[in-house]
Amino acid sequence: MTSSEPTATASQDSAYRRSGVDTEGADRALHRMLPHVRATWDDKVALQTLNHFANVVDIGGIGIAIATDGVGSKALVAQLVGRYDTIGIDCVAMNVNDLVCVGARPVSMVDYIALECTDAAVLEALAVGLAEGARRAGISLVGGETAQLPDIIKGVRPGLGFDLAGTAIGQVALDQVLTGADIADGDVVIGLASSGIHSNGLSLARRALLDRGGFGIDQRFDELGCSLGNELLRPTEIYVGDALALIDGVAALRSLFHITGDGFLNLNRLGTGVGYVLDRLPAAPPIFGLIQTHGAVPAAEMYSVFNMGIGFCAVVGPDDAERALSILKARGRVAQVIGHMEADAEERVHLPAQRLVGQGKAFAATE
Amino acid sequence: MTSSEPTATASQDSAYRRSGVDTEGADRALHRMLPHVRATWDDKVALQTLNHFANVVDIGGIGIAIATDGVGSKALVAQLVGRYDTIGIDCVAMNVNDLVCVGARPVSMVDYIALECTDAAVLEALAVGLAEGARRAGISLVGGETAQLPDIIKGVRPGLGFDLAGTAIGQVALDQVLTGADIADGDVVIGLASSGIHSNGLSLARRALLDRGGFGIDQRFDELGCSLGNELLRPTEIYVGDALALIDGVAALRSLFHITGDGFLNLNRLGTGVGYVLDRLPAAPPIFGLIQTHGAVPAAEMYSVFNMGIGFCAVVGPDDAERALSILKARGRVAQVIGHMEADAEERVHLPAQRLVGQGKAFAATE
Repeated sequence: MTSSEPTATASQDSAYRRSGVDTEGADRALHRMLPHVRATWDDKVALQTLNHFANVVDIGGIGIAIATDGVGSKALVAQLVGRYDTIGIDCVAMNVNDLVCVGARPVSMVDYIALECTDAAVLEALAVGLAEGARRAGISLVGGETAQLPDIIKGVRPGLGFDLAGTAIGQVALDQVLTGADIADGDVVIGLASSGIHSNGLSLARRALLDRGGFGIDQRFDELGCSLGNELLRPTEIYVGDALALIDGVAALRSLFHITGDGFLNLNRLGTGVGYVLDRLPAAPPIFGLIQTHGAVPAAEMYSVFNMGIGFCAVVGPDDAERALSILKARGRVAQVIGHMEADAEERVHLPAQRLVGQGKAFAATE
Repeated sequence: MTSSEPTATASQDSAYRRSGVDTEGADRALHRMLPHVRATWDDKVALQTLNHFANVVDIGGIGIAIATDGVGSKALVAQLVGRYDTIGIDCVAMNVNDLVCVGARPVSMVDYIALECTDAAVLEALAVGLAEGARRAGISLVGGETAQLPDIIKGVRPGLGFDLAGTAIGQVALDQVLTGADIADGDVVIGLASSGIHSNGLSLARRALLDRGGFGIDQRFDELGCSLGNELLRPTEIYVGDALALIDGVAALRSLFHITGDGFLNLNRLGTGVGYVLDRLPAAPPIFGLIQTHGAVPAAEMYSVFNMGIGFCAVVGPDDAERALSILKARGRVAQVIGHMEADAEERVHLPAQRLVGQGKAFAATE
């Protein structure tokens, strides 16, 4: 494995920070919030950390998994494009993809919509997307809150603003919660293709392409085969069926990872004392190259923010990789081995072809 | 009972609508969203309407109740006062008070914080409030999402904006879900005192007192005994312990109601074919008189928006009213009989002393 040390930490003045998202500040804040949150835990809380994608609570002997997330600034892309009937799919995806990572079968979801103004057609379109996402994930939508907050919510033009989030719950046997604790040196990392940018890094993408690049939302690029707006708005892939098939069919399934806001740094959140060598990554889809070029975003930052073409990962024992791949391929999923695990107390994520090594929340260039 | 007809429906140009909250538009939108949501339901969804305060899902034979809600524009009051360590209590309260209305014991909650900028001290204070609310409600905080959305969230001054919502889950035996279906003519309505404005109607309160009234947030009123800011910011009462004591101790407990954004019109949401006569309401606390006077808000609208001093209601059989009151008083809760049920296919809410009758989402004056 590459044992190179990072030669630079992520700049305080990174492009993402300039795009208005301060990930280091968010980590500091989380660190201060945690003791207060932890003080509310009892022995019914199955996962005594918040490092997992979802938590699990023992309710009457059944493991109830719960995860909450939103679509972030992808809402602004929907407004720019003027299309609202797909972003509900993203909202479902962000939650159910997190839920399956602890081994839970998603059951139901509630949504939370905060609005600048009430537009019945927009709200109906949001519901159409939520219902389509629910159909794809095999869950029911059992409630929601629509809050009119004209003094809190804003959008790309007056009146258009909205924020969309949700919470999903699911079921997992308490003795079958997927914690990743048995990940080991030699395990294999399988990557499942993303459908594009999914629902993370949209602030940086907008700054790079619309502001700095000066492109309109309707700009077409040959390499995309569609307009910028349609590319950025493409719904987040829902991996529930794939994850459940792997849980059922792969004996040595060690862990599942939803690749979200920290890119492949979602892999090293479990404190397992093993590092990742992702030496077989496929080429990143063209949208990421456009963002990198027109936003002058360093590669280290691209890999710290975006999924770079891999939306979900499964770590499996070395003898089960072929079986996992055949299950995924039978489901029509584009998937491949992207790397393997190596002993590393610092749990770094090595990208040798990109000459990057990631630790904590940032990748840095190796030399 | 009074059988007077409403002589006027709520004006399209009501004070609340002028304050930026369009409740009729929201109802129209909800009507268009519902068919899409309903299409995702299966027989595991215990309550096949969204008219209850929470829904219940059958997960492995256990009833898991789920409710989602936020603190709305009370976040702006926290910013004006510059105090952030109590509004988390409101967030918990809004969710757990809804959850107990279906007979569920709250277990856990996740929070969703959308932020304009990350301020670790503010986020820690929000967590302090959430943890205190969780302690009062007897629940654990098992996860959350903090989203930096500088292009979506705004506040009273640049950089201060945040939105705070959450989702609570709880447990209820599937054969003991409180639906209110057995509410009957002659039942008694017990009201539990609110701590003030709680977390609804803050947009109208701010417009009435700060904008139209011209008062500062630090203005002191003798009748309040504190500043306007502290009065408006006082945390929402958490009724979980009271509700669970009533569920355990009152055989003829028919229904529980969290009095939120539609005031006493939260009572007539169950489709039970019975109306309410609230002829023994206590005097509304002074904050409501100040809002009404300085905002020139008609009484019909006050009662359609605010809790008017009653934050939670229990409907019990006539022979159980004394027992319910003694349970509540033993817990130190200010509670009293505020009215009774009468047969009324239109499920109106009559306030004879106020000469108001409510139907759907609005009260109107009777003559």
